[in-house]
Amino acid sequence: MSVGESKIISAAVVLIGNELLSGRTTDANLSYIAKGLQLKGIRLIEARVVQDTEDAIVQAINSLRRECTYVLTTGGIGPTHDDITADCIAKAFSVEISINPEAKAVLLEYFDKRGVEANDDRMRMARIPHGATLIDNPVSAAPGFRMDNVFVLAGVPRIMQAMFDNVLPALDAGPRIASYTVVCDLAEGTIASALRELQDAHPSIDIGSYPGNVIGQGRLSIVIKGADTGKLKETAEQLTTSIQKLGGSVLELMPDPPD
Amino acid sequence: MSVGESKIISAAVVLIGNELLSGRTTDANLSYIAKGLQLKGIRLIEARVVQDTEDAIVQAINSLRRECTYVLTTGGIGPTHDDITADCIAKAFSVEISINPEAKAVLLEYFDKRGVEANDDRMRMARIPHGATLIDNPVSAAPGFRMDNVFVLAGVPRIMQAMFDNVLPALDAGPRIASYTVVCDLAEGTIASALRELQDAHPSIDIGSYPGNVIGQGRLSIVIKGADTGKLKETAEQLTTSIQKLGGSVLELMPDPPD
Repeated sequence: MSVGESKIISAAVVLIGNELLSGRTTDANLSYIAKGLQLKGIRLIEARVVQDTEDAIVQAINSLRRECTYVLTTGGIGPTHDDITADCIAKAFSVEISINPEAKAVLLEYFDKRGVEANDDRMRMARIPHGATLIDNPVSAAPGFRMDNVFVLAGVPRIMQAMFDNVLPALDAGPRIASYTVVCDLAEGTIASALRELQDAHPSIDIGSYPGNVIGQGRLSIVIKGADTGKLKETAEQLTTSIQKLGGSVLELMPDPPD
Repeated sequence: MSVGESKIISAAVVLIGNELLSGRTTDANLSYIAKGLQLKGIRLIEARVVQDTEDAIVQAINSLRRECTYVLTTGGIGPTHDDITADCIAKAFSVEISINPEAKAVLLEYFDKRGVEANDDRMRMARIPHGATLIDNPVSAAPGFRMDNVFVLAGVPRIMQAMFDNVLPALDAGPRIASYTVVCDLAEGTIASALRELQDAHPSIDIGSYPGNVIGQGRLSIVIKGADTGKLKETAEQLTTSIQKLGGSVLELMPDPPD
């Protein structure tokens, strides 16, 4: 890291569950987490979708928690036999796991209010690795938890989102990345050379080119990103000029945050 | 592998692209690939979403191609500077990359017919690692390719799907996994114990429990899977009995393939 450069805060996501790998369920959590991290200036560098087997989960956690500032997991913390995330986290950190008194109290109160039997399976959701702190679940009580730099969240999107919203303020913020999305009517192959020159001229700016799913529709999104808003604006202006020089039009220009 | 057991055919998917990690784009490719592989009896064991940087792509490819029968990648094979997948595959396999005559001919014909200039950027899409064979792209000509056990597909869903449909018949089939999806009105915590017993009694059957996103809606999906259709049917019947014994009702029972 050079002098004056802000510290990069990185994250990885582990999406746990066979249903995501069978095509039964399409993941709805990654983009929610990705957007939240981005707003906080945290760079999401990888996501893995893994089976709910101990080997797969422990290996992914242990690999990513050493590479990234933060790891977030989704799924596998319910009451059934295929919910093994908490045990896998305990194994990954070589700690014990047992009923956590705070989690137990929260669950008992929730079940009592609703006249639901606090059976052994439901109380499994109070099993938390030793040394972890709880993450509040305002939807259905059963908590997530934080173990060192790993945040264990539910898989059901509504619960996951509530837990993630509780976690986000506690994470270190990185340099805020601003962006422009420039939509134009040129083909990728027409503007590719200009984009390459622009990228070479501005190495601190990240330029991505995203054709739409509809071929020949004539809408190409170019996303430019960077922490230096002055440099970013300059790049956006040069891009606009390039598009016009190539005979194209800027159909949309969306700054984020808005100008 | 014990005697008489079918060979397991496994696969991993690498989704390449910063747009998936920024939340800008929600992946639409994984579930399509997952469903196709499942129909073929190929077990998808992991998916990774990686940034479009050389390190990230090469590392993911090299790790997964040694673990799995097949690896499929999506994204990063277009004409712009951020399309680096082909170069990364060449690097991962330590082979050269250059313009492939067959790919060049396909592209030139496509561009010629449409009056599109075959500039250097567009012709980059004909750069293929040495030793790879092409995968036909019936949508927009620029081919994917197969390098050993790695299949490199486009990121745009419509093109990816067409390429994948071309690839699938060439893959080895594994034992066809059949399944039942049993939807009931019991809470997960109510049926958890019965599911655990059922799973213990049928170790060759995979039982997963998936509550809906709407809390308290009273729809729990239990998915049971296995290659042995007789054993699977027996498990589904026992599950139905368990649900009724616990005071619940089976709301839906969907065999796949249909009975």
